[in-house]
Amino acid sequence: MNQLGIVKRNIERADRGIVERLAAFGSATVHEAMGRVGLMKPYMRPIYPGAQVGGSAVTVLLHPGDNWMLHVAAEQIQPGDVVVAALSAECTDGFFGDLLATSFMARGAKALIIDAGVRDVRVLKEMGFPVWSKAISAKGTIKATLGSVNIPVICAGALVNPGDAVIADDDGVVVVPGGDAARVADAAQKREDLEGEKRTKLASGVLGMDMYGMREPLAQAGLKYID
Amino acid sequence: MNQLGIVKRNIERADRGIVERLAAFGSATVHEAMGRVGLMKPYMRPIYPGAQVGGSAVTVLLHPGDNWMLHVAAEQIQPGDVVVAALSAECTDGFFGDLLATSFMARGAKALIIDAGVRDVRVLKEMGFPVWSKAISAKGTIKATLGSVNIPVICAGALVNPGDAVIADDDGVVVVPGGDAARVADAAQKREDLEGEKRTKLASGVLGMDMYGMREPLAQAGLKYID
Amino acid sequence: MNQLGIVKRNIERADRGIVERLAAFGSATVHEAMGRVGLMKPYMRPIYPGAQVGGSAVTVLLHPGDNWMLHVAAEQIQPGDVVVAALSAECTDGFFGDLLATSFMARGAKALIIDAGVRDVRVLKEMGFPVWSKAISAKGTIKATLGSVNIPVICAGALVNPGDAVIADDDGVVVVPGGDAARVADAAQKREDLEGEKRTKLASGVLGMDMYGMREPLAQAGLKYID
Amino acid sequence: MNQLGIVKRNIERADRGIVERLAAFGSATVHEAMGRVGLMKPYMRPIYPGAQVGGSAVTVLLHPGDNWMLHVAAEQIQPGDVVVAALSAECTDGFFGDLLATSFMARGAKALIIDAGVRDVRVLKEMGFPVWSKAISAKGTIKATLGSVNIPVICAGALVNPGDAVIADDDGVVVVPGGDAARVADAAQKREDLEGEKRTKLASGVLGMDMYGMREPLAQAGLKYID
Amino acid sequence: MNQLGIVKRNIERADRGIVERLAAFGSATVHEAMGRVGLMKPYMRPIYPGAQVGGSAVTVLLHPGDNWMLHVAAEQIQPGDVVVAALSAECTDGFFGDLLATSFMARGAKALIIDAGVRDVRVLKEMGFPVWSKAISAKGTIKATLGSVNIPVICAGALVNPGDAVIADDDGVVVVPGGDAARVADAAQKREDLEGEKRTKLASGVLGMDMYGMREPLAQAGLKYID
Amino acid sequence: MNQLGIVKRNIERADRGIVERLAAFGSATVHEAMGRVGLMKPYMRPIYPGAQVGGSAVTVLLHPGDNWMLHVAAEQIQPGDVVVAALSAECTDGFFGDLLATSFMARGAKALIIDAGVRDVRVLKEMGFPVWSKAISAKGTIKATLGSVNIPVICAGALVNPGDAVIADDDGVVVVPGGDAARVADAAQKREDLEGEKRTKLASGVLGMDMYGMREPLAQAGLKYID
Repeated sequence: MNQLGIVKRNIERADRGIVERLAAFGSATVHEAMGRVGLMKPYMRPIYPGAQVGGSAVTVLLHPGDNWMLHVAAEQIQPGDVVVAALSAECTDGFFGDLLATSFMARGAKALIIDAGVRDVRVLKEMGFPVWSKAISAKGTIKATLGSVNIPVICAGALVNPGDAVIADDDGVVVVPGGDAARVADAAQKREDLEGEKRTKLASGVLGMDMYGMREPLAQAGLKYID
Repeated sequence: MNQLGIVKRNIERADRGIVERLAAFGSATVHEAMGRVGLMKPYMRPIYPGAQVGGSAVTVLLHPGDNWMLHVAAEQIQPGDVVVAALSAECTDGFFGDLLATSFMARGAKALIIDAGVRDVRVLKEMGFPVWSKAISAKGTIKATLGSVNIPVICAGALVNPGDAVIADDDGVVVVPGGDAARVADAAQKREDLEGEKRTKLASGVLGMDMYGMREPLAQAGLKYID
Repeated sequence: MNQLGIVKRNIERADRGIVERLAAFGSATVHEAMGRVGLMKPYMRPIYPGAQVGGSAVTVLLHPGDNWMLHVAAEQIQPGDVVVAALSAECTDGFFGDLLATSFMARGAKALIIDAGVRDVRVLKEMGFPVWSKAISAKGTIKATLGSVNIPVICAGALVNPGDAVIADDDGVVVVPGGDAARVADAAQKREDLEGEKRTKLASGVLGMDMYGMREPLAQAGLKYID
Repeated sequence: MNQLGIVKRNIERADRGIVERLAAFGSATVHEAMGRVGLMKPYMRPIYPGAQVGGSAVTVLLHPGDNWMLHVAAEQIQPGDVVVAALSAECTDGFFGDLLATSFMARGAKALIIDAGVRDVRVLKEMGFPVWSKAISAKGTIKATLGSVNIPVICAGALVNPGDAVIADDDGVVVVPGGDAARVADAAQKREDLEGEKRTKLASGVLGMDMYGMREPLAQAGLKYID
Repeated sequence: MNQLGIVKRNIERADRGIVERLAAFGSATVHEAMGRVGLMKPYMRPIYPGAQVGGSAVTVLLHPGDNWMLHVAAEQIQPGDVVVAALSAECTDGFFGDLLATSFMARGAKALIIDAGVRDVRVLKEMGFPVWSKAISAKGTIKATLGSVNIPVICAGALVNPGDAVIADDDGVVVVPGGDAARVADAAQKREDLEGEKRTKLASGVLGMDMYGMREPLAQAGLKYID
Repeated sequence: MNQLGIVKRNIERADRGIVERLAAFGSATVHEAMGRVGLMKPYMRPIYPGAQVGGSAVTVLLHPGDNWMLHVAAEQIQPGDVVVAALSAECTDGFFGDLLATSFMARGAKALIIDAGVRDVRVLKEMGFPVWSKAISAKGTIKATLGSVNIPVICAGALVNPGDAVIADDDGVVVVPGGDAARVADAAQKREDLEGEKRTKLASGVLGMDMYGMREPLAQAGLKYID
């Protein structure tokens, strides 16, 4: 965690097909399939609703008020990547706006996840470049201090290694270690296969208590009905 | 407040016609008509804008990270109910998603009010099932601990008794004790009758200071004009 | 800062044409052009997305739970003004709703900036009256205590003098002292002139690192590339 | 909850001997003995460490910025009471200082629990009058609005009825309904009787895993040891 | 507010005798005497309890993560000054530790008020150098960016002009404009003269309701007693 | 990060002598010597002031409201260890009290670092067992869900591997990877050697601006003095 001033060029990216599969499941299903780990804190919110993306992480460690390394990170972006920016201390400044978004999109980035603020959010929405952030702020940043690119970072409480699969939608952001991506996608598929059937039953009025066989365990736990 | 593991089946619901009237006024007018009590904390926000609903409360007491009792509550829902879920300690997990929403809708529930997190919010919006919550989180919950259904609960700072009328819109969530609902609806109607007239006057450029006769009390309070 | 119970009638408003120019740049560009000062805290959020306005400040100092002075302020509004309401202590109550908005619009106000809560937000959106606030709350206020109108106030961490230019959009709210408005508009124009060109280059795939000549300073700062 | 402008003079106080017993156990033990309900939110903190008190609740409902009803409440205090002050909306003003504390002490009050701010905290500590509050603030309040005394209130997320036993120490504040006080004291005694023995065993190096017989349930739950 | 890179050497300091008088009253009394303005937000807390100081403000505007200007400010300190450090954006880093405190004390500073974090707090307590801050953090800062010294700043929501009297104790921090200091000290004295007498009466059991003649206004406001 | 239900018995602990050296420097110096990484968020506060400890990390991953794994962790404690407890989701419950502390002390633990709440804090202080936590709460926990012991965890924003050196004092908590401990201790020693000398100079009235040779870089950066 403590390498400052380093850019790692060759990283092992999660398989793009698998990442696309994970993205289609959404963050909640993937998080369950992971065994309920890897979720960023719920203060990470999309700047506009409805986007659902996945990509391989290009990680960046930034210092408060300084977005220099986002420019360095831009060069490391490959099509299908998601940039994940962690901060060395809490900050809500607007590190990212429409110019950087133009550059990131030109490089093929699919989204930015940043544990800080962004700006130009109306334009970003028009451009269709989704961002998950902690804040929105018109306050810009300087370019003076070295951070690093493609080192392991902790972003909004989650460990992200470069190349990890990152899935984000309206429910939040979840990180899948590259080596687990295939296994998690399979587990997610199993969950989803079961969900369609359950949904039909529940929509017909069947109670979850009956569908899941909860009545006996509830009674054993001591649940009492009174009138 | 301290009955755990209890489900009360027969509750006295607020009159449905009156609840509909209250819902049409909206939370701000109802809160005024109540005498400015019964409002949940303003951190309770709708997961999508524009919904305005009212219903009789089916209350649930949940424990952090455990949504078992939401399934138990589902069975107690009658058409026109609003489920109000309180927590025994603060938590932002996603207790509720599209499957439970499917079940709640099949039972006739009009909304969920929960002092915690929810997930699948994009789908919930597509389904048209409104939720007011404290957080949005992909993090799921387990089903292991008993809470209670239809006991008095404190949700986001407001006391809710089963059967109380609950009114929610973009301004927040207000609770009207069942026995007060008719009186409050009448008081709200009076407020609203006056508002149309006031709106016309104000729109024509008449000042509130003149319309409300504030100039004298302001002068008596010592207000001074300088140039 | 300590004059209570005072209404200043004659204030020097920022030049309307210049304010319009500033509004068109948006808060982020204006904030940069100002030298990165004058920004309100990022907790100030628009009640609906997409509005971008500018106006001369009519300032109000309110006390928690009391909106009397908003009525007094209404009389001081001239077309093109933005009302900026500061609080003498933190409060999230709903100080402002559709009736006051009707009055403010009739007077020609373009927006309200308030370091507290507002209500009737669905109607305000329908009316097209934009508000930047700290909270949304159905809780109303009383009319009992004197504050002041058109005195210097601190709103969400920013000093606002009556007549200052206030620019607000989805990125936040920035305050430009009346005397600086022309100079800031010129500086903002220069920034914007350069941005179009930059955007084209970045969109074509040129990296910011090259466009801004960052490679040498980064190397001098000690940046190392590894594989 | 919605009676404003009411003072109830005759309330049924929890038995003083039982309250003293509960106070000696402390908030954590009492909360367990209650079945883990009745706890105020953990943001309620003592203004100085080390105090541990219990008393019968005299409840007060205050409005933000207005401490008038604390004077009204003073008259209702009997020796051994704890004043519990709830707010109709969030506020951090300093509602209570050394003068009111002098009056409360003269009436026999043992503590103040207030979901808002207090001031003169250095003097309060010198006087030995403990307060649990949400904030400390030099900001005073006015005396203009009616609230109520000895009605049910919600204070920091807990329902408090007048006369309830209130126990507070460095761990927080717990409320015991008057009718439950004797039963809870007995349950707490049982817990405490067991604790001494446990403490001795644990101090001698016996592991909780063995003392509580956890090894088998842990294994059954699937716990795996690796080297 | 927008002069960056400026150090003003000659400032008009509040009269030292008057500042000492104000300090003796404490922040709560001074704030009342001011007419309830000038208070910093209640998140500003002393790093250790019990200190009560006053001084003339040497103001500093800092940028997040950069304490360079505190060294520049040190040279401007005269005996009896209090350094007031504002931030251009929110930050909790530890800008100040025992070395700077040694320097500040050598120059005669009486305290630091900083809208950010400090460190070495155990040593600062041993040195007897009081600090009111927003946070405590071991995280240090760099020395790279210009701010300003002795310009007007907004610190924790309060406007501070260089030379203003700043009073801080366990209740918070209040700012008295230099020109108002004498008048405020006199008003505070009057309040305090009355308080001793009131305290005696209240201690003897006289109720505030009687001492302040509140019974009639309460009855007029509609207060009702029930049994 | 995603191994649930696992206890690793053999971990490589940081050298005890080096850990003691690091502890003596304190968190601020160690954090600087680390290159300003490894610090937990500043919301982690000691339950009483003055403690300064270091130890090798025994890590625990807990689920909200469930402290079962702290008992499992107790068995893995060796003299000189510090237990570091991370949570799979935010929670402020009181996971740890005097009984567990008795057990931890009997095993030789030096402290607990927990990203949640603790209770019995008055007794813990009397016992001399220091804890750094996010909250204090009387609310107890259950023993029902498996977490893990001695896996890598993220605690208050910092990655902690089992065996890492953990240093905590009134300024916060810093984590030093086991392999870096010796190097960091040497770097910290160098910083400290220089500090004594600096302190003497500053105490004699020498300005940091002169001692550090800042006048020229400040002038080059454009600092201007005005009168």
